[in-house]
Amino acid sequence: MPVDSHAIKQEFPILDQLVHDEPLVYLDNAATTQKPQAVLEEIANYYQTDNANVHRGVHTLAERSTSRYEAARERVRQFIHARSSKEVLFTRGTTTSLNWVAHFAAQTLQPGDEVLISIMEHHANIIPWQQVCQQTGAKLVYTYLKDGALDMEDLKSKLSSNTKFVSIAHVSNVLGVVNPIQEITQLAHEVGAIMVVDGAQSIPHMAIDVVDLDVDFFAFSGHKMLGPTGIGVLYGKEKWLSQMEPVEFGGEMIDFVYEQSATWKELPWKFEAGTPNMAGAIGLAKAIDVLEEIGMEQVTRHEEELLAYIFPKLQAMDGIDIYGPIDLAQRSGVISFNIKGLHPHDVATALDYEGVAVRAGHHCAQPLLTYLGVQSTVRASFYLYNTKEDCDKLLEALEKTKEFFNGTF
Amino acid sequence: MPVDSHAIKQEFPILDQLVHDEPLVYLDNAATTQKPQAVLEEIANYYQTDNANVHRGVHTLAERSTSRYEAARERVRQFIHARSSKEVLFTRGTTTSLNWVAHFAAQTLQPGDEVLISIMEHHANIIPWQQVCQQTGAKLVYTYLKDGALDMEDLKSKLSSNTKFVSIAHVSNVLGVVNPIQEITQLAHEVGAIMVVDGAQSIPHMAIDVVDLDVDFFAFSGHKMLGPTGIGVLYGKEKWLSQMEPVEFGGEMIDFVYEQSATWKELPWKFEAGTPNMAGAIGLAKAIDVLEEIGMEQVTRHEEELLAYIFPKLQAMDGIDIYGPIDLAQRSGVISFNIKGLHPHDVATALDYEGVAVRAGHHCAQPLLTYLGVQSTVRASFYLYNTKEDCDKLLEALEKTKEFFNGTF
Repeated sequence: MPVDSHAIKQEFPILDQLVHDEPLVYLDNAATTQKPQAVLEEIANYYQTDNANVHRGVHTLAERSTSRYEAARERVRQFIHARSSKEVLFTRGTTTSLNWVAHFAAQTLQPGDEVLISIMEHHANIIPWQQVCQQTGAKLVYTYLKDGALDMEDLKSKLSSNTKFVSIAHVSNVLGVVNPIQEITQLAHEVGAIMVVDGAQSIPHMAIDVVDLDVDFFAFSGHKMLGPTGIGVLYGKEKWLSQMEPVEFGGEMIDFVYEQSATWKELPWKFEAGTPNMAGAIGLAKAIDVLEEIGMEQVTRHEEELLAYIFPKLQAMDGIDIYGPIDLAQRSGVISFNIKGLHPHDVATALDYEGVAVRAGHHCAQPLLTYLGVQSTVRASFYLYNTKEDCDKLLEALEKTKEFFNGTF
Repeated sequence: MPVDSHAIKQEFPILDQLVHDEPLVYLDNAATTQKPQAVLEEIANYYQTDNANVHRGVHTLAERSTSRYEAARERVRQFIHARSSKEVLFTRGTTTSLNWVAHFAAQTLQPGDEVLISIMEHHANIIPWQQVCQQTGAKLVYTYLKDGALDMEDLKSKLSSNTKFVSIAHVSNVLGVVNPIQEITQLAHEVGAIMVVDGAQSIPHMAIDVVDLDVDFFAFSGHKMLGPTGIGVLYGKEKWLSQMEPVEFGGEMIDFVYEQSATWKELPWKFEAGTPNMAGAIGLAKAIDVLEEIGMEQVTRHEEELLAYIFPKLQAMDGIDIYGPIDLAQRSGVISFNIKGLHPHDVATALDYEGVAVRAGHHCAQPLLTYLGVQSTVRASFYLYNTKEDCDKLLEALEKTKEFFNGTF
């Protein structure tokens, strides 16, 4: 059954508002998504009925809270089809998840080793690797693009027995391109490298099976998939997590603490120091319920339909430059573009006056933008509550913007 | 005006429930506190009206979200009386905050240097220092107790020009003792050491002025002071934060990113990589509003009254061992105890059957419990919504528990 985005929109109170006297059209979903009433109610319900610290208490609330928190972990496990909930670590978000993997890399990387990333990575999948390479003497190698997508020949040529980690975005937050993670993982494994995936822009929009993809690590955030802020996940194969040292130290993650040393708990708790974001994890689990009730295949199809609807119309617009592949089969619902002669910030500001929320800037991907030869772009990004009318509104507002600035300059 | 804890209790929906057919008496506040309806409404209101990613967008929601997030930082600044909001970093919680300070220490500590902590520290203020000492060759030195409180003579004798960091809990989560932080800070500064305070158990219960205390770092969590889970704060003097390297790397915290290097933003943003816990920060700010509306002096006084009411009655109980000082002027609203012949977990379970939620265990302070010669204790911890009737219920339930186990053993 196709997604009824008009009905879905009703579940998101924030979308029912005027911005500059125009109905809000929210197209900044790659930055963060809105939250359905069901997620807000779940968070409130947790705080109103079961809130207590987890894993430590014998009282009823503590037991109920622990059950809900661990059920949230199991919910995430099911959603990504991990083999064990030991492989599901709750973090603050994708950034923390990727930083943890880089910490793990620092345990083993040596001079002469290489880390391969792509030029389209988000800063969160660049700077931790820069740091770990500076620290260990390993080399940070980039693979570049062809026709707005990964140049797979270039990527293959940069893989060797020196490559110890390959870390690639599943979906680019600028280009919208979906990278062939299964294929890259296979190539990485052939040279003995560990495959890390920044899934922040993929998991909100498509079904993920980490076993099928065979990735070693998969990082994502709750807030980009209808969930609350401050919660994310690091999936890691048990064989790596069991070798990985904890990154944060404190309560909850220990087995025994002596004055001068300490021993760690088993997986997954050895990584979760301190009081976790219980409400965040529980809210994320409810977001997964909402997504699965609709069906991830339906979510993907809905965004494909929106893309098929708006992309040719944008392409046909005078003076527009669209970044990324033109083959829609390679694309998710993120479109970055510029309008000749107009600054992206001016475009975004003008669109805001029409009620249309889009992002303008470097999208935390400065090396990509430098590579593309631009300082910033406008970015429209879609989700399950967006409609064809939202697309029409964006197109209209863009036409108005062009007229306005042509008139004033 | 004294705190009307009966009226306040009405603002906490979770407290109006039966546990094992008995009205819930929640006395596990040192683990986490409950949330008033105003905080839950603030979080929902944020998500229902302004949710968007911060610092990056030019659209209306992004601007409103950024304003609310930065207003939350300013609210925290006012609450702790920091000189500048540059000195207020949002973290995941106290544990993360203390780990960050330990990272900073790792930048400078050398063999021969010393870090002084106390035997009453929470694991979050022990293990990060163990790690940094193992890493740098510095020595982790402990100061011990006298009459259930810090032995100030011992502490003084352990301070020297080798001492580079002193890190002490403001209030012990086991002993309930309030440590003389202002005095210790002065002593630490006299030998040139940096003073770090684990404020997790103090800031929920008393007015804090970081300038007056003159501490260099002050760490705390939102969830222990009526705020949501997944948010905390690290206060640091600007002179230290400006020298401190970021701990996490990603979007938001950078100025410019090249392929092989990156430069950082100014304070406080250089520390906040990735999408922050916006709803968490905003919820914490509202929790501060709620606390200040009541008045921190009133909160302190209310807990003093509860303590004065229950402590002598507990002391008078047959077969009870209370840990920590007997001088109530040295105490906050945390009481750890054991009943001779009964396992603390059995006591906590029995109390739970009477609706009374207390903690039993090592309270993430194993070195302290080893020092005290016990494996675990029962802990009752109070907050502004607790009443004298709650105290009576605890006392009754303890008497019942003793009768029950004497009958069965």
